[in-house]
Amino acid sequence: MAQDLTKLYQHGTLAMLVPGLFEGTMSLGDLLKHGDTGIGTATGLGGEMIVLDGKAYLVKSSGEVLLLPDETQLPFATVHFADHELTGSTVHNLTEKQLGDKILTEHALQNVFFAVQITGTFSQVKTRAVAEQKRPYPPLSAVADRQAVFTEEDGVGTVVGYFSPYLFQGMASAGFHLHYLNDAKTLGGHLLDFTVKEAELTLQPFGSVEQHFPLDNQEFMEKEFDLEKMNEEIERSES
Amino acid sequence: MAQDLTKLYQHGTLAMLVPGLFEGTMSLGDLLKHGDTGIGTATGLGGEMIVLDGKAYLVKSSGEVLLLPDETQLPFATVHFADHELTGSTVHNLTEKQLGDKILTEHALQNVFFAVQITGTFSQVKTRAVAEQKRPYPPLSAVADRQAVFTEEDGVGTVVGYFSPYLFQGMASAGFHLHYLNDAKTLGGHLLDFTVKEAELTLQPFGSVEQHFPLDNQEFMEKEFDLEKMNEEIERSES
Repeated sequence: MAQDLTKLYQHGTLAMLVPGLFEGTMSLGDLLKHGDTGIGTATGLGGEMIVLDGKAYLVKSSGEVLLLPDETQLPFATVHFADHELTGSTVHNLTEKQLGDKILTEHALQNVFFAVQITGTFSQVKTRAVAEQKRPYPPLSAVADRQAVFTEEDGVGTVVGYFSPYLFQGMASAGFHLHYLNDAKTLGGHLLDFTVKEAELTLQPFGSVEQHFPLDNQEFMEKEFDLEKMNEEIERSES
Repeated sequence: MAQDLTKLYQHGTLAMLVPGLFEGTMSLGDLLKHGDTGIGTATGLGGEMIVLDGKAYLVKSSGEVLLLPDETQLPFATVHFADHELTGSTVHNLTEKQLGDKILTEHALQNVFFAVQITGTFSQVKTRAVAEQKRPYPPLSAVADRQAVFTEEDGVGTVVGYFSPYLFQGMASAGFHLHYLNDAKTLGGHLLDFTVKEAELTLQPFGSVEQHFPLDNQEFMEKEFDLEKMNEEIERSES
């Protein structure tokens, strides 16, 4: 398959996770046909996945970082092919909030999907990893209460994730959704907070986003989603 | 480009039309690379487009039906490649509401995008076509008040359109969004109401939907969307 650098690919939706559809419905091997960089989670929300250079790592709630085999099943994941021709910019001493504001102030990108990659040193990083759930799966909001939190000072590593326009809340997590992995592959997860010390920031805007659904998963196909409750639950779970 | 029968392709979003972003941002020629069947509209909301067998027709508010050239610019359009291997079913004497209910009762498809094609005779058809707008473009809700309405009894023709899951309200028009064109190519438009007399119904579910954005359109890129007002406006405009 040709590498389309202008397309973001997503399997599953955030909305599926809200009522507890945590079963993996696409293999990592199939996912990687659509990108070499990205984020996601595994069956049962068994950790926080980050994909770098075509390799997928899972940060478990134990803190352990696993290199995932291609057979791993994923309920929700987002990937793209990193465009190595893009020119990044160097950023210094910025909190997560300051960095997000700077990106959206300097670039008119708030209405499209774009990837964010930040490589360098971080004066502080705070991540979380949810604990793997067994059936019967609880709702996402209950899982967010069972997360492990990790912190690192002067970490050297990579932040990868996406900005999704607010129109797509529920398909994705609107705004920035970022994961982290340090270079030593010993600490990572879903970013709760961080401060950049000095890093290279690269933004990759996408002309299109391909949303893929697990048509063969009966549980998903038959689910009645409560969309009114969804936004509230997403805000509780993803912040 | 290979014809992917499991993918729906959309250029632009319904949300863009709500505040009046009516400028065409993709040519029909480029759109048709992604499908031979579908619906849409032209610059200025200059009518209701229906694409059948790779040919695009525009129903103007004058009632005239134009065959569109490839250079036509489109702000919003949705297409797919029709799967001619699909088996349809014959339906008789059903109102639009009854047909929609029947589809969603008999098929667990409410959480995915699918195409609807209905070919045959219709005891009554009621369509609308909006009037072409000039700059400065008004909001969509104002245009809906300036539509022409057409009716046909015992029409012979084709209904084409899509069902979009409620999660995607704003990206698309949630629920069914159908256009009509009679075989004589003398009457058509956005369907307001219809009753099937006897017709062949075909449903084509999609494994994925590719949403394409006009990244080169500065007006879109810089627009501040009021998403809270959007749902209300869509309900006024699309029903």
